[in-house]
Amino acid sequence: MKPNFSKSSKGLLPAVVQDHSSGEVLMLAYMNQAAWEATLTTGKATYFSRSRQSLWIKGETSGHVQLVREIRIDCDQDTILLKVEQVGGAACHTGHRTCFYTVVDNQGSRVVETPVFDPKEVYSS
Amino acid sequence: MKPNFSKSSKGLLPAVVQDHSSGEVLMLAYMNQAAWEATLTTGKATYFSRSRQSLWIKGETSGHVQLVREIRIDCDQDTILLKVEQVGGAACHTGHRTCFYTVVDNQGSRVVETPVFDPKEVYSS
Repeated sequence: MKPNFSKSSKGLLPAVVQDHSSGEVLMLAYMNQAAWEATLTTGKATYFSRSRQSLWIKGETSGHVQLVREIRIDCDQDTILLKVEQVGGAACHTGHRTCFYTVVDNQGSRVVETPVFDPKEVYSS
Repeated sequence: MKPNFSKSSKGLLPAVVQDHSSGEVLMLAYMNQAAWEATLTTGKATYFSRSRQSLWIKGETSGHVQLVREIRIDCDQDTILLKVEQVGGAACHTGHRTCFYTVVDNQGSRVVETPVFDPKEVYSS
C-alpha cells in the first residue's frame, strides 16, 4: 500500500501534519510523488508548494524542520498523515504552534493561540 | 475569518477530522460552501462527496454521525479542522476507528488498527 498520486488530476495529495507527541494538528500541505520520496528518504517532511510550484523542504528557511516519526495513509490511498517532531516548536509561518489557531462558530471567529516566535526574527535574512 | 472557498478551483476545501477527546485524526473529506453552512447550522459534519457530487451527511447511512465540538480554520483560510465526537466509535467505512489505519515506511506498509465494527452488518439494508 502506498499513496496513489494518480487519483488527483494534478498528482498532488493532501498531507495532514500532526505533532507526534501532543496529537495536535499542525498544518496541511500537499505532496507529489517526488515530495513523498524525498520525505521517505530524508526523514524530513518535504511538500510540493502550490504557490511556488516546486519542492519545499519544510523549515528550509526558518530551520524549523519537521522530523517524521510515522507516516500513515488512509483507506482510499489519497490522503497522507505525517506524525512529526516540529523543530522550533511552531509549524506556522505566523509563529503559531499550529496553523489552526482560529476557532469559527455561528457567532464568528476568534484566535485561540498565541505565537511562540516572532516571524520577523526567524525570517529576517 | 471564514473559509475562502474561492481559493479552490472547484470550490472545495479539505476538512481534517479529529476526535475531540483522543486527538486521533479520523479522516479527511471535502467541503463546499453548502456543506460548510450545513455543518454550522446542524452541528453534524456534512461534506461534499466528490464521487457522488452531492452533499453527504456523514453517518447518514450507518448512523455513525459526527457531532461537531469545535471548528478551526488555518492561517490561509483554505483548510478546515473539525473536532468531533464520532458516534459509533468508527469513522471509516471499513469499520476501523480511523481511516488512517495503515503505516508506511521504507520497508513497506502494515495495518496497525483492528476494526471496531463489521461493515457488512452496519451497511446491510
